[in-house]
Amino acid sequence: METSERRRQLKEALIAAAEGAIDRHGLAGVKARDLAREAGCAVGAIYNVVADLDDLILAVNSHTLGELERLLAPPGKAAPLTGPEAAVAQLIALGQAYLDFAASHTLRWRALFEHRMAAGKDVPDWYLDEQMRLFRHVEEPVAVLLPDIAAPRRALVARSLFSAVHGMVILGLEEKLQALPRDALHEQVRLIIRSLGYGLLAKEKPPPASGER
Amino acid sequence: METSERRRQLKEALIAAAEGAIDRHGLAGVKARDLAREAGCAVGAIYNVVADLDDLILAVNSHTLGELERLLAPPGKAAPLTGPEAAVAQLIALGQAYLDFAASHTLRWRALFEHRMAAGKDVPDWYLDEQMRLFRHVEEPVAVLLPDIAAPRRALVARSLFSAVHGMVILGLEEKLQALPRDALHEQVRLIIRSLGYGLLAKEKPPPASGER
Repeated sequence: METSERRRQLKEALIAAAEGAIDRHGLAGVKARDLAREAGCAVGAIYNVVADLDDLILAVNSHTLGELERLLAPPGKAAPLTGPEAAVAQLIALGQAYLDFAASHTLRWRALFEHRMAAGKDVPDWYLDEQMRLFRHVEEPVAVLLPDIAAPRRALVARSLFSAVHGMVILGLEEKLQALPRDALHEQVRLIIRSLGYGLLAKEKPPPASGER
Repeated sequence: METSERRRQLKEALIAAAEGAIDRHGLAGVKARDLAREAGCAVGAIYNVVADLDDLILAVNSHTLGELERLLAPPGKAAPLTGPEAAVAQLIALGQAYLDFAASHTLRWRALFEHRMAAGKDVPDWYLDEQMRLFRHVEEPVAVLLPDIAAPRRALVARSLFSAVHGMVILGLEEKLQALPRDALHEQVRLIIRSLGYGLLAKEKPPPASGER
């Protein structure tokens, strides 16, 4: 086997080991000694295939972002949004899917937000691009609700909507403010996104009469 | 000096030392050895006045909650809300104040959410009561927007509004999703709360024509 192929296989094994460690113990579970044992290499050999553990964590997070994207926007299921009602419904569906993903992959989802690069190192551009790609799924319904705003502002509003839902999911799942049954959390995510959607829309035109929704 | 008075003074000194440590280094900065040195006692003496470091951190967090409450609801400035417009304006003011507090006391604010009790210990009821008291300031305008919902549901909606704003503040300040200038964050908090407020209101009656707001 060629060296480059052996290196590739070792890197894959280390990424898989890091993903397993995060799934079991969160970011704090990513330890060079454990990864090396699981991948069957010496501790020092890790640094022949990656610069540091951040590289492995970014690879795991990239994989997590990919899974999340497949859940938010299943391939081959992209009917165009027919109007504001469909846009609000789409935002609600995205929010519910995000909550489900966070609830079922909690430690890997948390790692997306808790990971910090070592001092002096920046998050690489390819990773930022992957993050931004996810936001495009939120921007699409926002464009239907607010057709007249420019793209940079639309991106900002999409980011704010995401952040608002993220706040509900993180505080809801952590039960930091007293326990909240999962059904109640789903219902609240629905209520808040719907209110937000129709509230944004009301800036442009009056919302439909209540019978229509 | 009586023993009980000496114990009280030592406890105060330890709480002040813990607050300083959190302000400088966050929760990870709270270390028994450093606190003892600063308070001028032996490490073991800490455990004569508190059960463990959690007790000190809860005391600091309680102090932080008190500061936050004075900012959200300055004493002696409690004019009744005159209608939905005033309620939305009040929610926006609370959100802006929350953002300002988080931006200017970041590490102490984060400690409110990052602190976990030692395994097997519950957060004491007096602390939960203080946390809940803060939410009442959000419930008041919610009651004006949604006058017909029952108190438990009103509490749930207030919690959701808080969580949504908290999400914007935490992701905005951490700059986890690319940097966001503070002005833009303030403006987005305003937009999202206003949309949420009028969106909630629209469930009950149509929003006022755009000229009125």
